[in-house]
Amino acid sequence: MSVTVVGSVALDTVDTPSGENIEGLGGAATFFSLAAANYTDVNLVGVIGTDFPKEHIDLLASKGINLEGLEQVEGKTFRWKGHYHDDLNVRDTLETHLNVFEHFEPKLPQVAQDAPYLFCGNAHPAIQMMTLEQSNHKFVALDTMNLWIDIAHDELTDILKKIDCLIINDEEVIQLTQDHNLIRATRKIQEMGPKIICTKKGEHGCLLFHGDQIFSAPAYPMMEVVDPTGAGDSFAGGFMGYIAQQDDTSFNTLKKAVIHGSAVASHLCSQFGPDGLTKINKDDIEARVQEFAELVKF
Amino acid sequence: MSVTVVGSVALDTVDTPSGENIEGLGGAATFFSLAAANYTDVNLVGVIGTDFPKEHIDLLASKGINLEGLEQVEGKTFRWKGHYHDDLNVRDTLETHLNVFEHFEPKLPQVAQDAPYLFCGNAHPAIQMMTLEQSNHKFVALDTMNLWIDIAHDELTDILKKIDCLIINDEEVIQLTQDHNLIRATRKIQEMGPKIICTKKGEHGCLLFHGDQIFSAPAYPMMEVVDPTGAGDSFAGGFMGYIAQQDDTSFNTLKKAVIHGSAVASHLCSQFGPDGLTKINKDDIEARVQEFAELVKF
Repeated sequence: MSVTVVGSVALDTVDTPSGENIEGLGGAATFFSLAAANYTDVNLVGVIGTDFPKEHIDLLASKGINLEGLEQVEGKTFRWKGHYHDDLNVRDTLETHLNVFEHFEPKLPQVAQDAPYLFCGNAHPAIQMMTLEQSNHKFVALDTMNLWIDIAHDELTDILKKIDCLIINDEEVIQLTQDHNLIRATRKIQEMGPKIICTKKGEHGCLLFHGDQIFSAPAYPMMEVVDPTGAGDSFAGGFMGYIAQQDDTSFNTLKKAVIHGSAVASHLCSQFGPDGLTKINKDDIEARVQEFAELVKF
Repeated sequence: MSVTVVGSVALDTVDTPSGENIEGLGGAATFFSLAAANYTDVNLVGVIGTDFPKEHIDLLASKGINLEGLEQVEGKTFRWKGHYHDDLNVRDTLETHLNVFEHFEPKLPQVAQDAPYLFCGNAHPAIQMMTLEQSNHKFVALDTMNLWIDIAHDELTDILKKIDCLIINDEEVIQLTQDHNLIRATRKIQEMGPKIICTKKGEHGCLLFHGDQIFSAPAYPMMEVVDPTGAGDSFAGGFMGYIAQQDDTSFNTLKKAVIHGSAVASHLCSQFGPDGLTKINKDDIEARVQEFAELVKF
């Protein structure tokens, strides 16, 4: 089954302890699509400016990603600039220029509307709601961020009632619930709507809550994280791609989906920009999934 | 095979979001012994003052712990007072009165010297070295803390060369190596001596490094952590107790030992003081170990 992603397409400039990457291909919808394309058909819905390099479009197209919903409008593409500390869990946003993304209103082509699986990338909850209303999905997952928890709390609460799955990081779980116990806090978010929650913990892995059940996935042990930008969206892409491929949302399938998401995200972090995703194939992912299995076996 | 632990025996006063516990039985050697006694014969070596309640001695003895090495001297028992925040990962030490522990010099009775497995609880590395020199162990694990990394760095470095296994938390790994990548940092500590390292990550579980191999153990998902005091020592007790019981230090056995340590520590955290350890039996531990297996299965 196919999956649709709606979200940002960006040009990212980052420096990390491993070096820097200037105006690399980035954005939630980009990372998601490149990850999910390993599993199934992907429809990307987003917006770019007239300055967007053609080579990036060619790259996405070469991966079989359907770009019918990638609107190109007058103006500049969304740009983000960030600095990562020696502790890569800490990053400073140096510049954010929303540019054409500021007035983005998603318009889903028919094929994107009809995809059974939908991922709403991080955006204002109002934009995510516009996406939901156009879609004929049977399963929808959503990402959010600290900013929306802060300034669009009510709209976020509204959309939480309408989704199947929330993909969120541990700090956001605590921020949203004001509860420091991650297990209890995630349970509280389940009561707000989504019965399935992936609580991402960065270098500590991910917890999957599926109704009453919990699955704990490890992180892949990496001696060097080159660039974590897009790790969350790559995780979401591997996760949703696998679910869409299997066309199943049982606990067993979702556990495997979390491992696939983690495997794909670990590849992403090993290089700058999307290179860690574009230079791997299905065998690389499968080998990494096996490493995850070995890592927790006792 | 039997195990010897050398370390503090204390009276702990704590307040946590769940309530408070005044002058409860505490100390590294106490928690370790109560955990390890589920698996094998335990020799406790430590010191208490004349004020130490007889009921605590009776409790330890009732668990079959050999107290020949528990010296009682004129003066007061070691006391510690702490406050835990809503985020239980953060605690403030309000008072530390070393009392009779200040001039503690471990004297291992013959049976403690001859135990094949030895655990040096958190203490000044010079005290730990005195312990090592008296022991005829074939496998020794050691705990330490931020204070010794800071003020006794050289002595700590010396003893690291002489041990088989270091049990340490993630913040201490970073402090000791000045490297924020936990995997790379732990590898650096392996180069300093111990080929086996348990890097504890609190609510995120534990990583076991065994030569080139890595095992990732999850934390038990707890909706309420009542009192984490002694969790690390209980982990060490379950870990070393299991190893001593199996009389084997292969990677496979150590992986199971980490899970047993985690299982015991999760029981400990569910009640104040040592109650979580004293009120469980082998079946409770085995049931928890099975829950850990379910938690990571995919």
